[in-house]
Amino acid sequence: MLIARVIGTTVSTIKDEKLVSRKLLILRQTDERGEPVGKPYVAVDTVDAGAGDLVLTAAGSSARQTNITKDTPVDAVIMAVIDSLEVGGEVVFRKS
Amino acid sequence: MLIARVIGTTVSTIKDEKLVSRKLLILRQTDERGEPVGKPYVAVDTVDAGAGDLVLTAAGSSARQTNITKDTPVDAVIMAVIDSLEVGGEVVFRKS
Amino acid sequence: MLIARVIGTTVSTIKDEKLVSRKLLILRQTDERGEPVGKPYVAVDTVDAGAGDLVLTAAGSSARQTNITKDTPVDAVIMAVIDSLEVGGEVVFRKS
Amino acid sequence: MLIARVIGTTVSTIKDEKLVSRKLLILRQTDERGEPVGKPYVAVDTVDAGAGDLVLTAAGSSARQTNITKDTPVDAVIMAVIDSLEVGGEVVFRKS
Amino acid sequence: MLIARVIGTTVSTIKDEKLVSRKLLILRQTDERGEPVGKPYVAVDTVDAGAGDLVLTAAGSSARQTNITKDTPVDAVIMAVIDSLEVGGEVVFRKS
Repeated sequence: MLIARVIGTTVSTIKDEKLVSRKLLILRQTDERGEPVGKPYVAVDTVDAGAGDLVLTAAGSSARQTNITKDTPVDAVIMAVIDSLEVGGEVVFRKS
Repeated sequence: MLIARVIGTTVSTIKDEKLVSRKLLILRQTDERGEPVGKPYVAVDTVDAGAGDLVLTAAGSSARQTNITKDTPVDAVIMAVIDSLEVGGEVVFRKS
Repeated sequence: MLIARVIGTTVSTIKDEKLVSRKLLILRQTDERGEPVGKPYVAVDTVDAGAGDLVLTAAGSSARQTNITKDTPVDAVIMAVIDSLEVGGEVVFRKS
Repeated sequence: MLIARVIGTTVSTIKDEKLVSRKLLILRQTDERGEPVGKPYVAVDTVDAGAGDLVLTAAGSSARQTNITKDTPVDAVIMAVIDSLEVGGEVVFRKS
Repeated sequence: MLIARVIGTTVSTIKDEKLVSRKLLILRQTDERGEPVGKPYVAVDTVDAGAGDLVLTAAGSSARQTNITKDTPVDAVIMAVIDSLEVGGEVVFRKS
């Protein structure tokens, strides 16, 4: 899984019918302290994540293992909102 | 999923029989504002996307979860045309 | 899918039994004009591609969606020979 | 599989129901001598790995091939703790 | 598939039960001439490859399409030992 921050939203009228009513958020991967790394990507939200939240995303066929994404043409899913990250015995991120 | 712009088309006479009548478009991944990043790739169009459109693509086995791509040897699908992108509470892209 | 050029061949005597009689070609990914980018990789040929041809390859489980690669331990397949590529309304590659 | 070192832990209250009671560790990929390379990622622990351990992780659908991760939206799993690594006939890492 | 060279071995006592008796080798991807490129990774050996051998590896779900790796949490498999590589009509590698 990747640690990522929710940075935006996408709006699409023309889309696969299985995507109707799905919330597709724009994310940027972060490192283990919440600092941005890498290119942006888009994932289906299944946990009511909000702008600025640090989340976990699963990719590939694993992204279809939730009730909301089953049999859907999506390759990334937000399946957890991160409360805190601990590295080297120290809390390096805590959701405010 | 990746945000990408449609930049071209491919034509193939010799191809797997399941690809007959499939529209294979050339894409370039973009960032969250529609600016190009990364290398070009090719995806099957399922939403009648046109040259210059910003779209969403799903990769891997997820690319086969549409009626058009089921059981087909393709690893990327265009499954949405993007109307607008919002980042940090601001609309950063709107389809013209 | 990736656009790639056939640059060579591999020969293996000791291999998984399902690979017997399969043609494994060496490819280099190209951009949308046929110029090389990225590292070389190997794919099973299902369309009788030849040295120098520009082709399309599908990766992952999608590589097993042809009659030739079903249930086979291969993660990349050549499933189309490219006749031409058009970018920005202009033909940028034509098979000679 | 990737060789990686366990560098931290994640805590999430809001998550997919299949992730309840799963231990999600933060990892950093290492080279063949245990030196860090690449970006951090998160994997489900199935072998009771501890902070600082060098481990092996499997990604994608393969991450769901354990009793603990079956049908779960996770794309990386820790499925072995590394005792030692040998390169060029020499032991280059031994678990202390 | 990737062309890679076997550079070492891993030893693990604590591991998923399906990995017992599996040989997990350390590899480094090479280019089409056998020169190293990219980061090391680990794959299950199914063809009795030895140190220094140039091999082909398949990744993802395709890595589970051999008798040895079926239903196993591994995402890379060595499924061929390379005898020779030919590029541009010239033999650029031959197993010694």
